[in-house]
Amino acid sequence: MAKKINIGLFGFGCVGQGLYHVLNNSKGFKANIVKIAVKNREKQRPLESSVFTFDKQEILDNPEIDLIVELIDDADEAFKIVSYALSKGKHVVTANKKMVASHLQELYNLQHEHNVSLLYEASSCGSIPIIRTLEEYFDNEQIEKLSGIFNGTTNYILTKTIAEKLSYEEALKQAQEKGFAESDPTNDVEGFDAKFKAIILALHAFGVIAKPEDVLNIGITTLSPHDINYASEKGYKIKLVPTVKRLTQNEISIFVLPKFVPVSNHLYSVDNEFNGVIVDGEFSGEQFLKGRGAGGNPTGAAVLSDISALSYGYKYEYKKQKQSPDIKFSNNALLKVYLRYNKEEDLKKFEFQNISEQYTGGEYHYVIGTIDLNDIIKNKAYLIKNKLFIGVVGEDISAVSKPKESVAKKLILN
Amino acid sequence: MAKKINIGLFGFGCVGQGLYHVLNNSKGFKANIVKIAVKNREKQRPLESSVFTFDKQEILDNPEIDLIVELIDDADEAFKIVSYALSKGKHVVTANKKMVASHLQELYNLQHEHNVSLLYEASSCGSIPIIRTLEEYFDNEQIEKLSGIFNGTTNYILTKTIAEKLSYEEALKQAQEKGFAESDPTNDVEGFDAKFKAIILALHAFGVIAKPEDVLNIGITTLSPHDINYASEKGYKIKLVPTVKRLTQNEISIFVLPKFVPVSNHLYSVDNEFNGVIVDGEFSGEQFLKGRGAGGNPTGAAVLSDISALSYGYKYEYKKQKQSPDIKFSNNALLKVYLRYNKEEDLKKFEFQNISEQYTGGEYHYVIGTIDLNDIIKNKAYLIKNKLFIGVVGEDISAVSKPKESVAKKLILN
Repeated sequence: MAKKINIGLFGFGCVGQGLYHVLNNSKGFKANIVKIAVKNREKQRPLESSVFTFDKQEILDNPEIDLIVELIDDADEAFKIVSYALSKGKHVVTANKKMVASHLQELYNLQHEHNVSLLYEASSCGSIPIIRTLEEYFDNEQIEKLSGIFNGTTNYILTKTIAEKLSYEEALKQAQEKGFAESDPTNDVEGFDAKFKAIILALHAFGVIAKPEDVLNIGITTLSPHDINYASEKGYKIKLVPTVKRLTQNEISIFVLPKFVPVSNHLYSVDNEFNGVIVDGEFSGEQFLKGRGAGGNPTGAAVLSDISALSYGYKYEYKKQKQSPDIKFSNNALLKVYLRYNKEEDLKKFEFQNISEQYTGGEYHYVIGTIDLNDIIKNKAYLIKNKLFIGVVGEDISAVSKPKESVAKKLILN
Repeated sequence: MAKKINIGLFGFGCVGQGLYHVLNNSKGFKANIVKIAVKNREKQRPLESSVFTFDKQEILDNPEIDLIVELIDDADEAFKIVSYALSKGKHVVTANKKMVASHLQELYNLQHEHNVSLLYEASSCGSIPIIRTLEEYFDNEQIEKLSGIFNGTTNYILTKTIAEKLSYEEALKQAQEKGFAESDPTNDVEGFDAKFKAIILALHAFGVIAKPEDVLNIGITTLSPHDINYASEKGYKIKLVPTVKRLTQNEISIFVLPKFVPVSNHLYSVDNEFNGVIVDGEFSGEQFLKGRGAGGNPTGAAVLSDISALSYGYKYEYKKQKQSPDIKFSNNALLKVYLRYNKEEDLKKFEFQNISEQYTGGEYHYVIGTIDLNDIIKNKAYLIKNKLFIGVVGEDISAVSKPKESVAKKLILN
């Protein structure tokens, strides 16, 4: 921290403004935001206009700017900015989970080739320092499982459905009115946001690189009052739980599915807009971290922490990947699930390995049984279209004994 | 991690053996335990006798040993070992909370004078990486409050009193039978262990140095069935909660007292032998970390993490202290408490600022009111002797408007 750092900022939305506030009020760290690149020329902004630019090169090619902070929404544009900056030898901090999750290999290579550092703590679980904890504290301990609640919007909605007996539609509307959900909530309620975060954390916890298109995400859009009643009767809460699980020594599965969470699970106490992460380590057992997953100040604080770390020369070491170069992503997992269906032919679509409970009634039916994750993937479109609801029950996730196929991704260290 | 590290280990009890196991089973990190110093010549040990020594100088003066890991019980002897090693230019890892809490200033000075690093993550909350998180993640964010459950023994006992309606005496007996409590449980049940941890965390979170003798600790030894009933009726759990609170910009209070914890508090879900820490940051809001606070493998994993960090040249920066050199420890705090008493003259001992509730019955009485922490300190001996029970109610802790006295401690940076 010998000299004051000059920052070039991209984006001045919720997180950008949060960073600005946090940076100006931090007692410990001083840095200048020299220039802010924004897109919309019409918008009124709370700072004087000379600090803004509409030309990204004005920041990227400014030799006085020490590091780039990228906080825009558009993942494709964000990748262009970040990859250009890294290739020009500039360190970068980003909070863009979709961009990072979609380009893990390229971003790794760029850092390595140009000897620069890219930090993205704010991309996953807002203020919870999970990436840093995985990198620095669990670097020598084998992780068996990582799961959590990574999306505050869906958690807010789900909390309302159980606590206030609202329907999914009512709870979504309330979340939108309160600013917890966007007018197009697809990214949140269909589990994409949670998936990107799970993919990022899977690299730092297990060393595996998965492509977003290979990882299942089923959200909460088909949740019905029947499912809410079922959960309430059994004492469960319904949560959207991304899960990363070691199936065998070298196979890691990742998926995002609703889950019926019992009171004994740490995630049971994570309500409303909070996020939580459970890390199950070989020696430490279960570690649980909980904090605000979104919001300008909490996310701004995470960005500030990365900026500060960069000022000390910090970079991710990706040690897990180096320790386990043969690790592969796989969907060959067996899960125990609740499937609520409407008619007999719905059930016939699925190949359950066994069914431990079955309920048929006038209005709806459900089964509880063990199923291959590949079978859920195959039936995802049918499930959504016909408004069936599926949710994980219990903690058992095991490898399918005879793998059908394996999607292998490997990070090439160069 | 260029070369394999040679470790000299002091102590081979639960944590020492846990470290040995963890080190031998870690995929990521290799180090040799070259020599282990132990005290008892009679004890059977699971390793061949040539690895053990009864002469501490054989380790301390061995030039081939790169770092010292100190895991003995005796705090005075531990300080001799650690200060000698540091003064000879050797890096040290310790898990001894009493030793660290009692010598913060000296240990800081020794590190600085001899340009060596002392790490002690395992001293506080076992496997929870709280010191590292405070040092590296909250380094630029002002912390307003830090509280938690830092002692697994008392938490196990308290969980049993509420969940199984056991009396304190019955629950203590069960904890001793299961190995969760020692035959002399004073250090745990009177809150000394929790206090040492709170003092260590207060330095890393607030930059304040407090002496153990200045910090109040009242444990759970006077807990009666009346108090347990009161908690159950109101929906509280009773927990032993060390608290570090910013009273004013430059005054920090620290105390260990039982607390009536409502379901809305993160600590409500921390049961049995688990530990939990809530860090309330200016920007991030409440962050909560939960994990195993004791046990050979979890604590061994924390020690391993420190050893690994040392191999990369890591040292604590004590940034909060450098940012706030004027910060002082103070007991001038107002708290809202429940006080259960036996006879009218008990109550007269205490100077309540106000009393919001009062119950008098045939068997016992209680008041709920606001009291000066100094007044509790003054009456501690009376309270224990007459078996009164005191517990914090609610979250309000404020500065006494006209401070009576101030115990100022300052870390001198040299």
